[in-house]
Amino acid sequence: MDRPTIYLDHAATTAVDPRVVDAMLPYFTAYYGNPSSVHHKGRESQKAMEEARRAVAEMLNCDPREIVFTSCGTESDNLAIRGVALAARHRKVVERPHIITSPIEHHAVSHTCEQLAKLFDCEVTVLPVDEYGLVNPTDLEQAIRPNTVLVSIMYANNEVGTIQTIAELAGVARARRIPFHTDAVQAGGSLDLNVYRLGVDLLSLSAHKFYGPKGVGLLYRRQGVPLLPLQTGGSHEGNRRAGTENVPYIVGLTKALELAQTGQAEENVRLVGLRDRLIAGVLERIPHARLTGHPTQRLSNSASFVFEYVEGEGILLLLDHEGICGSSGSACTSAEIEPSHVLTAMGVPVEVAHGSLRLTLGRENTDADVDRVLEVLPPIIQRLRDMSPLYPG
Amino acid sequence: MDRPTIYLDHAATTAVDPRVVDAMLPYFTAYYGNPSSVHHKGRESQKAMEEARRAVAEMLNCDPREIVFTSCGTESDNLAIRGVALAARHRKVVERPHIITSPIEHHAVSHTCEQLAKLFDCEVTVLPVDEYGLVNPTDLEQAIRPNTVLVSIMYANNEVGTIQTIAELAGVARARRIPFHTDAVQAGGSLDLNVYRLGVDLLSLSAHKFYGPKGVGLLYRRQGVPLLPLQTGGSHEGNRRAGTENVPYIVGLTKALELAQTGQAEENVRLVGLRDRLIAGVLERIPHARLTGHPTQRLSNSASFVFEYVEGEGILLLLDHEGICGSSGSACTSAEIEPSHVLTAMGVPVEVAHGSLRLTLGRENTDADVDRVLEVLPPIIQRLRDMSPLYPG
Repeated sequence: MDRPTIYLDHAATTAVDPRVVDAMLPYFTAYYGNPSSVHHKGRESQKAMEEARRAVAEMLNCDPREIVFTSCGTESDNLAIRGVALAARHRKVVERPHIITSPIEHHAVSHTCEQLAKLFDCEVTVLPVDEYGLVNPTDLEQAIRPNTVLVSIMYANNEVGTIQTIAELAGVARARRIPFHTDAVQAGGSLDLNVYRLGVDLLSLSAHKFYGPKGVGLLYRRQGVPLLPLQTGGSHEGNRRAGTENVPYIVGLTKALELAQTGQAEENVRLVGLRDRLIAGVLERIPHARLTGHPTQRLSNSASFVFEYVEGEGILLLLDHEGICGSSGSACTSAEIEPSHVLTAMGVPVEVAHGSLRLTLGRENTDADVDRVLEVLPPIIQRLRDMSPLYPG
Repeated sequence: MDRPTIYLDHAATTAVDPRVVDAMLPYFTAYYGNPSSVHHKGRESQKAMEEARRAVAEMLNCDPREIVFTSCGTESDNLAIRGVALAARHRKVVERPHIITSPIEHHAVSHTCEQLAKLFDCEVTVLPVDEYGLVNPTDLEQAIRPNTVLVSIMYANNEVGTIQTIAELAGVARARRIPFHTDAVQAGGSLDLNVYRLGVDLLSLSAHKFYGPKGVGLLYRRQGVPLLPLQTGGSHEGNRRAGTENVPYIVGLTKALELAQTGQAEENVRLVGLRDRLIAGVLERIPHARLTGHPTQRLSNSASFVFEYVEGEGILLLLDHEGICGSSGSACTSAEIEPSHVLTAMGVPVEVAHGSLRLTLGRENTDADVDRVLEVLPPIIQRLRDMSPLYPG
């Protein structure tokens, strides 16, 4: 790139904070013991890991034994959903376990539900969402059946930033004594993670969304929720996740979460300021443009749009040429040609959904970055439209 | 500890090589993009990951598409075994998938087989081993049934160091067109990993056993072997393992494997020298002691013993007091009270199996370390025996 990078894809991943790197470094070369070993090198690692677990549990307001460290948000989602569904199946609690979910989940949730339905005798109900991507608690209430074993609805959407009324939705499930899981991967850096206040039974997090490393996540799982382990072997993580623990990354996740929670309110205010100026500027300067997701009940860092008569791919390539990193939606589905399942579930027409752009802000972004996008994006859209045979001009 | 550490538990885990740390560092803060992102930050990461995959594939003599990066050796074992068994079950290739394995596998293999038998309609045959822990190819041949879908036998044993005749065993399976998996986690740092020469279809590795980080492994899976993904979500790793890739650790695993293979023959000779002096010295100085595992067909760094009339736990604590880190067997089972399943399968009586000690050498160990063990260990054993009511004196 000849131009300096303006990174506006923080929902895809973030750079690791140098303070997180510093926290991890000693655990590679100095405190390298296997936490399962009984000697002093093992105990050093064990101690660091359990201190991390206690610190995380305090931030989530739960018991340390309720934290399962995993290798990523996808594993956490898989463990929650497959673990609860298969536990119910094998304990023969119900004939066919029934899961309720939403149509705007990350594929880590939706594909897991689909595999359970296809191969493991489970039933899945996908609730509708409104034009902003919100699930209606009444719809959830009505979808509950005698064989419902789990509800899984994401906290904040990765593509359009909409924040669900999780406490209310979880309350509906709790009243019927059905475990409620939320994929909080995208919410982790900026929203309240107090599981008591949220009222959730299972919650997934991934460190790389809040300036921690890629390759570590966690599952909060309330004590008493039956869970079949998916990765069997040694008795690590209270027999819920076998495998030698990734001590440096567990320490790193914890440090990253601490940093995210310190001054979170102020940073959210700063990001909302940038975000709203970006949104207003784009809608003002570009015709046939629309904000996707909820106008206010959305992640502080997330601006997402659809532009008629253009392809998202083209926007990304031309922005990238200017040094600006954006996304057309989820990074995990960037290889797909299908339009976003999130946008179509929200009622965006397929041809419009193809013209999506997500710009997600982060700690290092400034007013100047917003100015640059507002300078560069309108001519890019115009240039692409001029090439489109569909554009009315 | 008041004394300097002598680390003799390299089979449990190793310190990360500083050159591996250096190789990983840029991927935390500089090249931090999500490999699935289409912009230049994403492409940087994607490129690094695919270069790593090519380098690993070259070292294993396979196609890059046959490498699946995972979060650890346990995950690799789970993916191989559960993935193949459940794929066979769902494709209805056979009524009840049958797996053949050995009684000296790591729990990542044995517990996975047990869960498949208990909950997923699979059948499991556990072959016998001889006094050295070796599986007889004729026994394998005879155990094969029409519904056999997988053979899983470890390359080198983690507790006693015995190396199987993998190429011969794999040949038996291959002749019957049955996929052969080997848990090569303990073999990774010192043995031949050429999958063509070995003739295996699936092979598990974990970086932290050869001076790479904890929390990354790989599964080699020959093209065409049906495998059900266990972690569903995005289309990462050729749809075989969803989840944002841990780019720094993938780079680190690759660097660690390169370093292990460079000068491997010389290092093995050096380690065998230390190992054999340690073994001879211990057996010479301590009565009622026995080497476990094969005397010569064993890992270059592994010395393992049983001592009558003592508890392994006591040996470890007293060694640790002298700064020496050893193990009573697998670190992953150190919380268990049961005697080692490996030793009992090899015919070691239960009461003797309790007195096990594993000392596993590594790059930084020297003759002086061996001298120190030979000085310290005999009085420790004697002291423990003097406290035992069973010791005839």
